[in-house]
Amino acid sequence: MNSYNDIYKAYINCLNKRDLMNLRKFVHDNVSYNNNQIGLPGYQKMLEQNFNEIPDLHFDIELLISSDFYVASRLRFDCTPQSDFLGLPINGKKVSFTENVFYQFKDEKIEQVWSVIDKMAIEKQL
Amino acid sequence: MNSYNDIYKAYINCLNKRDLMNLRKFVHDNVSYNNNQIGLPGYQKMLEQNFNEIPDLHFDIELLISSDFYVASRLRFDCTPQSDFLGLPINGKKVSFTENVFYQFKDEKIEQVWSVIDKMAIEKQL
Repeated sequence: MNSYNDIYKAYINCLNKRDLMNLRKFVHDNVSYNNNQIGLPGYQKMLEQNFNEIPDLHFDIELLISSDFYVASRLRFDCTPQSDFLGLPINGKKVSFTENVFYQFKDEKIEQVWSVIDKMAIEKQL
Repeated sequence: MNSYNDIYKAYINCLNKRDLMNLRKFVHDNVSYNNNQIGLPGYQKMLEQNFNEIPDLHFDIELLISSDFYVASRLRFDCTPQSDFLGLPINGKKVSFTENVFYQFKDEKIEQVWSVIDKMAIEKQL
């Protein structure tokens, strides 16, 4: 079993506790998100915006696969975006959707993230 | 290295050759797609529809991760849907997008597929 599974679960736990002070333990200074190098400050800002827009945001790991320096995770969300989300007018409706996301690690921290969120699943619920 | 990598690459090669007669070598009779059990005939029909709607459809593996009975793949597409795709009016425009997809194997064949296509990336190109 790959040790990145445990690091990844601790990272998700950090997010679910809103413990962004400890984000630097899991996320590399030079982190890229979907090929944009946003760095740790940009990553933290993105998460803060997510938490502001979706106060009940909670990350559930449905499936976790890891090999070498990579982790692949299928995340499940049941949450209530307060206004727009992904350009869709949610406005406080509870929606359920998934995210299939890949991570590349460096120095035991997340350095690359390639994420796809299932926008079509949300559209069908509106 | 997990042997499912090689099976998966052969499956993708089968799709790129439009060799659907041999799909049964890679896809289980009881296959489910995003938790809908469509079976091998339904899976083949879905692919035939994809190839009809997108004549130049080609699957490029950008990232491949496998562990136990699972494969996670990030696929890249540069293609030209002829009319609508994912509910978007593409109408012969060339678009580039990715799919993050997980597969669960049984009897060395794909039995479960959980796919998310990056619809937002396509919307930005229209």
